Amino acid sequence: MPEVISEIASLRVRLEDLRRKNRSIGLVPTMGALHAGHAALMHAARRENDVVVISIFVNPLQFDRPEDLEAYPRTMEDDLRVAQDCGVDIAFVPTAAELYPREPAAFVDVPALTTYLCGQFRPGHFRGVATVVMKLLNTVQPDRVYFGQKDAQQLAVIRRMVQDLNVPTAIVPVPTVREPDGLAISSRNKHLSVEQRQVAPVLSRALDAALRLIENGERSVATIRDRVLPLLAQCPQVRVEYFEIVDVETLVPVMSVNGPVLIAGAMWVGSTRLIDNVLLEGEGE
Amino acid sequence: MPEVISEIASLRVRLEDLRRKNRSIGLVPTMGALHAGHAALMHAARRENDVVVISIFVNPLQFDRPEDLEAYPRTMEDDLRVAQDCGVDIAFVPTAAELYPREPAAFVDVPALTTYLCGQFRPGHFRGVATVVMKLLNTVQPDRVYFGQKDAQQLAVIRRMVQDLNVPTAIVPVPTVREPDGLAISSRNKHLSVEQRQVAPVLSRALDAALRLIENGERSVATIRDRVLPLLAQCPQVRVEYFEIVDVETLVPVMSVNGPVLIAGAMWVGSTRLIDNVLLEGEGE
Repeated sequence: MPEVISEIASLRVRLEDLRRKNRSIGLVPTMGALHAGHAALMHAARRENDVVVISIFVNPLQFDRPEDLEAYPRTMEDDLRVAQDCGVDIAFVPTAAELYPREPAAFVDVPALTTYLCGQFRPGHFRGVATVVMKLLNTVQPDRVYFGQKDAQQLAVIRRMVQDLNVPTAIVPVPTVREPDGLAISSRNKHLSVEQRQVAPVLSRALDAALRLIENGERSVATIRDRVLPLLAQCPQVRVEYFEIVDVETLVPVMSVNGPVLIAGAMWVGSTRLIDNVLLEGEGE
Repeated sequence: MPEVISEIASLRVRLEDLRRKNRSIGLVPTMGALHAGHAALMHAARRENDVVVISIFVNPLQFDRPEDLEAYPRTMEDDLRVAQDCGVDIAFVPTAAELYPREPAAFVDVPALTTYLCGQFRPGHFRGVATVVMKLLNTVQPDRVYFGQKDAQQLAVIRRMVQDLNVPTAIVPVPTVREPDGLAISSRNKHLSVEQRQVAPVLSRALDAALRLIENGERSVATIRDRVLPLLAQCPQVRVEYFEIVDVETLVPVMSVNGPVLIAGAMWVGSTRLIDNVLLEGEGE
């Protein structure tokens, strides 16, 4: 089993010792409910670092809806087993009181990157994410930190935070892990009924359809949306929150695909919100 | 002369080497125009660390008035001489393009501490300060960082940022250095005419008067202000911006002095804005 540490001070002492021995440290920040997506992050961290630290902390600061925080799956014993299987050395599992001993007053924010996509529907979410990630980076001081491409806006926000604030940690993005039918793996998938689970891959199929249209030469985002949105509209259980094509760095919607873009969507299936995206690098040729 | 480094990458390499040799590092962040107040910071850093780094950077992000940024004194040669006299090892003197290679998008903010005192008159100022200090802390990764008590709200903001975001650096506050007549030393004092310079110590005298009233048992802030503000009002060259008694941690104005408070004032003398404060620790008994 990984070494479980719940106090910041103990973790610092432990890592200080490893750093003094010149061991490289990789951090995988998670909220637990570990699945194959997290496993991919941990495997990447295992390959590239002497010491792998995972943090497991359901961060209240990033939940815009209290019922979401309440419902978030907490599966610590299973999580530690998964972490062990992935070769994790240290699991940092602080309580909320340890990480937020009082009402937080200092925040990190990247407002320009949270205007579109999930940001417009989840006020305060990315401020909560950026703030807790800054806290974890300052606590662990890793050489590398691992984030999944599935949470593309989160990745963009953290990337910009690390660049703009000169955080001495390299960010390693890891591709989205999918079920055989294309559904992006997420801890939220557990909330889906059997029927909802059958419908859920439609988001991934819609993203693929958009990607194929672009690969076949279509440039107009309006045309792409007109062709793709009906795929989602034909599922009565699905309510689309957004389906956007945005500049890969600024996350601002584009009218026409002329460079690297992110195609990203969010939809509700019943009371479960699912997100997914595909990245189109190069000129879309 | 101190070793002058203007690139982040070179500074990192240099400090990495020192850290590997287990040398402790003290950072004194400044905007140049070094005076006896800065010297006190550098002397403190010199006593407590193996390596002293000073940063000299006029941070555009913290200027709420462009004319202030324009007018800010730039005296690099003198500054390096002062730094040398104080035993500084490394002077980090980045250009604006080095520290802000593009429009900054990620910010650190402590909104709850910037509602009162200078915060209400200088929109964005403390966000600019917190952001650049976070950048400098991430670049230098010092064991200790030195700030003057003269900029009390800045100190409170940085303290809270370091605590809330788990920055692994100790903050060392250094008492305000004053001229013989009580005027707090500031780079802005250079802008005062001979006549204005004679009037300027009135702020320090008003703060002292408030302190004495409290020491003599007065608890009512309204009474204290009624007694003290006339001292400032009688100088026709002076325009008071604020004169407040606030809780020392939250910086919220108090009605009655029942614990540690900060007595802080800001005034304009002509086109020069001066600030000063005194700290009343304990119960004011």
